[in-house]
Amino acid sequence: MTSTNPLPTKIGIIIFPGFQLLDYAGPLDALNILSATHTLRLYTIASTLSPVPTQNAVQTSQGSTFSQSILPTHTFATAPKDLDVLILPGGLGSRSGEGNDAYMRPQVEYLKGLDLSGKGSVKFVLTVCTGSEILARTGVLDGRRATTNKKAFNEVKAWHPQVNWVAKARWVVDGNIWTSSGISAGMDLAFAWIAEVFGEETAQFIADRSEYERNVESGNDRYAERWGAV
Amino acid sequence: MTSTNPLPTKIGIIIFPGFQLLDYAGPLDALNILSATHTLRLYTIASTLSPVPTQNAVQTSQGSTFSQSILPTHTFATAPKDLDVLILPGGLGSRSGEGNDAYMRPQVEYLKGLDLSGKGSVKFVLTVCTGSEILARTGVLDGRRATTNKKAFNEVKAWHPQVNWVAKARWVVDGNIWTSSGISAGMDLAFAWIAEVFGEETAQFIADRSEYERNVESGNDRYAERWGAV
Repeated sequence: MTSTNPLPTKIGIIIFPGFQLLDYAGPLDALNILSATHTLRLYTIASTLSPVPTQNAVQTSQGSTFSQSILPTHTFATAPKDLDVLILPGGLGSRSGEGNDAYMRPQVEYLKGLDLSGKGSVKFVLTVCTGSEILARTGVLDGRRATTNKKAFNEVKAWHPQVNWVAKARWVVDGNIWTSSGISAGMDLAFAWIAEVFGEETAQFIADRSEYERNVESGNDRYAERWGAV
Repeated sequence: MTSTNPLPTKIGIIIFPGFQLLDYAGPLDALNILSATHTLRLYTIASTLSPVPTQNAVQTSQGSTFSQSILPTHTFATAPKDLDVLILPGGLGSRSGEGNDAYMRPQVEYLKGLDLSGKGSVKFVLTVCTGSEILARTGVLDGRRATTNKKAFNEVKAWHPQVNWVAKARWVVDGNIWTSSGISAGMDLAFAWIAEVFGEETAQFIADRSEYERNVESGNDRYAERWGAV
């Protein structure tokens, strides 16, 4: 447990069309329970205040209409500059090489406008799944250790070779930047981060309330082999 | 694997103020991935089309503003009558004995208007956490086996003694009604249900894509003891 004084209170999360629902909801629901005992404020940030759908191109090409729409509370223009924590989900909507670079540019520009190095007001950056791929585009991961979704790993590594990508990791901590592997790994990242900042007892209490079996070893990751991440 | 022919395609989920985010997002994100290979349609159903916030009274009394708002696609009046599957999340907003009976009445009346016995068009009902407590108010669980959130278990059992509540269970299947324990147990319920209806190979593929370690034994549940459920 590090000494983070005062404790973080202002938490921002960025969403965009085609984000992965559990990347967003896993960490946030742990924080929902934390916010019952610690005063927290959530800022849900997007390009505009229009609802942001999870529907992705693969679902659409299958003929599925299976989308969840989340309402942002702030835009990149109105979000406060003094967030303590920034969370970045991933998802098919965001990835390089899928024709998404243009529409993800506002997200990347917003991130570039913040000091995410750990020396500014944003004390922590947490990414889930290919959220780390979005972050890599800003340059802040250059020379840092990070991980990402294991099915997408080799592609992400090829697109951003200046990052020290770690294949076999449930999550990776490099200074103030916490990156997790795919989708559900974001829950283990969130509990590890809560343990580090708010204490292990608090983290385990929330996990027990959630009836969630944590994966507590950051290096224990069978999905690197499952998806051929090297 | 049962023979469900044709396979379910129309999936409804009910949301209400104060629902628990992961109760909703856990099963839906497994189904999001399923919908990339099987044509599915999601109906997000609420009293009105206004965004539905997760914020609950405990967060508010702590001074936290930490809410996620989901946009419904249908109201109780406009939702189709021929849903194949109905999903019910729980959460502090819904519980009996917390002054919520009045505002949950539209949800309960809507459920009473459907044939959930398994003999009507709704082939499956899946509940997460205290979603089973909402379902119990309709009478459809009378004499059936079911489970619920383990911290709330003893209260729920006292409110609805006509249900055969099972304390030590990650999830319970009674005919067409699948009920899970608290919050994250909904993910294991969803994977077990997908395995039953779409096949184990499909279920495990989705879990691997989600990098999720399933709890595959429905009777393996340490949270009954953790929270004193009897």
